[in-house]
Amino acid sequence: MTANHMEKTQKVLECSDLEAFVLNPGPSLVYTTGLHFHLMERPVVVIFSKSQVPAIVLPELELQKLVDLPYEIRSFAYGEGLDTWTGAFDQALSSLGLQGKRIGMEPQSLRMLEFGFLQSAVPQAKFVDAGNIIGGMRLLKDESELASMRMAVRIAQKALENSLPLVRIGMTEKEIAAELTLQLLRNGSDPALIFSPIVSGGLNAANPHATPGLRKLKGGDLLVIDWGAVVDGYVSDLTRTFAIGDVDPEYLKIHHVVQEANIAGREAGMPGEPCARVDRAARSVIEKAGYGVYFTHRTGHGIGMEGHEEPYMRGDNLQIMQPGMTYTVEPGIYLPGRNGVRIEDDMVISASGCESLSDMSREMIVIG
Amino acid sequence: MTANHMEKTQKVLECSDLEAFVLNPGPSLVYTTGLHFHLMERPVVVIFSKSQVPAIVLPELELQKLVDLPYEIRSFAYGEGLDTWTGAFDQALSSLGLQGKRIGMEPQSLRMLEFGFLQSAVPQAKFVDAGNIIGGMRLLKDESELASMRMAVRIAQKALENSLPLVRIGMTEKEIAAELTLQLLRNGSDPALIFSPIVSGGLNAANPHATPGLRKLKGGDLLVIDWGAVVDGYVSDLTRTFAIGDVDPEYLKIHHVVQEANIAGREAGMPGEPCARVDRAARSVIEKAGYGVYFTHRTGHGIGMEGHEEPYMRGDNLQIMQPGMTYTVEPGIYLPGRNGVRIEDDMVISASGCESLSDMSREMIVIG
Repeated sequence: MTANHMEKTQKVLECSDLEAFVLNPGPSLVYTTGLHFHLMERPVVVIFSKSQVPAIVLPELELQKLVDLPYEIRSFAYGEGLDTWTGAFDQALSSLGLQGKRIGMEPQSLRMLEFGFLQSAVPQAKFVDAGNIIGGMRLLKDESELASMRMAVRIAQKALENSLPLVRIGMTEKEIAAELTLQLLRNGSDPALIFSPIVSGGLNAANPHATPGLRKLKGGDLLVIDWGAVVDGYVSDLTRTFAIGDVDPEYLKIHHVVQEANIAGREAGMPGEPCARVDRAARSVIEKAGYGVYFTHRTGHGIGMEGHEEPYMRGDNLQIMQPGMTYTVEPGIYLPGRNGVRIEDDMVISASGCESLSDMSREMIVIG
Repeated sequence: MTANHMEKTQKVLECSDLEAFVLNPGPSLVYTTGLHFHLMERPVVVIFSKSQVPAIVLPELELQKLVDLPYEIRSFAYGEGLDTWTGAFDQALSSLGLQGKRIGMEPQSLRMLEFGFLQSAVPQAKFVDAGNIIGGMRLLKDESELASMRMAVRIAQKALENSLPLVRIGMTEKEIAAELTLQLLRNGSDPALIFSPIVSGGLNAANPHATPGLRKLKGGDLLVIDWGAVVDGYVSDLTRTFAIGDVDPEYLKIHHVVQEANIAGREAGMPGEPCARVDRAARSVIEKAGYGVYFTHRTGHGIGMEGHEEPYMRGDNLQIMQPGMTYTVEPGIYLPGRNGVRIEDDMVISASGCESLSDMSREMIVIG
């Protein structure tokens, strides 16, 4: 059990036009209830109701997690026999009187597994997308959350600093990723990493979401490392790009352009302005340099208990920046079939502007 | 890209009463297509069709992953603007002619996010639970898969052997879990661990699914460690229980009972017999010793590309064991508010019986 936001959740629900929120295991469940469950074949849901004490449907063998909770919750536990699962869902939903009501859920988290049991328990209820309402509670980080994120940034930076001296020509992407992961843990990251490092060299660096593979690092490669740590469930997410020995002069040029775009994007955070401002600031630098077509993704995304969350730094996002929002600025240039560069920092909107949580050098460092 | 089973998937689909399978990122997508995607806010689906080339809906920035695929797939890519997402889904599903058709999906994997786009593209189609059909393709492991699992067991055992000498009274569960994770990576586990170690001492050991916390190890505790490695996407999943110094004599007794139940469960694997046989063999040992009520979960679960998958070793599961099935045997006794014991091994059904993949000592080892 970590901190919970039961009262906040109840207040938000009361102001909504929904009768209930339903949550399955994931960041929003941890944030609202402080309860950690694995997302597995045994469904677990917590249901907040406007008029009644919240309910939880869970396997009997997880009941121990409810002992000594600092709030009231009604449990509906099922056994190992599949026939008992339906009964537990039916009882929970009917005791809350949710037949025919509007129930909010998170489409990015709720699976057809949980939905199937819920829908069969209250077939007349309407399940509506409340992703923005539920996720929105996590949008503005308080001091305690920011302290965890600052620590996650420090751990990530330290881990990369300790890993770089070990990087050699001939190492595979996987070997570099394993060494970096080990350093993340050794420096104090939570063992449950939310994403494992992306380490991609040469051709693979042209793919923004590559998986580390058996390709060996060669002279002339660019090496993109995208990594992060986790502290108390809060993440950091950084990227730096390195040169392996002498590289094509165009690669030095695109690195310089991305560095300038990163600066422009980092300077554009401002309370009261739309998120689009950050994307436009970074993108215009890359467009002016003639590489706009090779910057194939948005400039950044929110971070917190998830690696990607609101607010998204897209050119069409008119959401207003507010103090406490945390997000990445990560412009990139990807030359298909050749190489790629990305430079990513973590930011927080302050009362008067914004602040970089990360401060590791963004210069092109040559290895080998 | 890892190995794919495109032809196998196509053949299974052709024998089914479904017109299509739809898969989102996860183990079944890797198994069928060899494609790795993160499960994120940008939906990705692959749709297999009885009559046409498979289709994939994905973000433009992931297109690089489709270069040089050893099979044909039609891609429908969307941009960063949310308005382009619906269009890509609509085009993919209508080009496959799926309006009004029966489409199989995996309820444990498909989210309301993907389902929302799919349903809005073909509102007359019927999405049906094909979890057993799709997951069923992964049920029997071939030699190459078993080789990965054997390696994952060896790495896990070696990692625990290297970690145990560091365990001391006063260490927190989290510290022990971090050290073990580090050893898993150092010994060659894939960096993306499928589950992080469960390390629970004393009171927490009475909770089968505890999350490692800040509780410090004390003399008189039992220490339950449930951990595993990953090799080429295939997992191992083991548990051993240790005594911290002198413990309550009843704890020694329940450890002995669980050890006997583990042996009985491991010996019960046999092709042609129902999975229930394994559960009954282990459970009857614990029941005879008078602790049946404290063995609150099934005896085991399948393992492979997921930590928990078919076949489940439950007393009511009449599914027939077949050579190549891999599963855990993990009886436990949990004394509420006191302590717990679990001993878990990984098994494979052979032509004439079964084999333990794991062989680390199951005796009660005293630490400190």
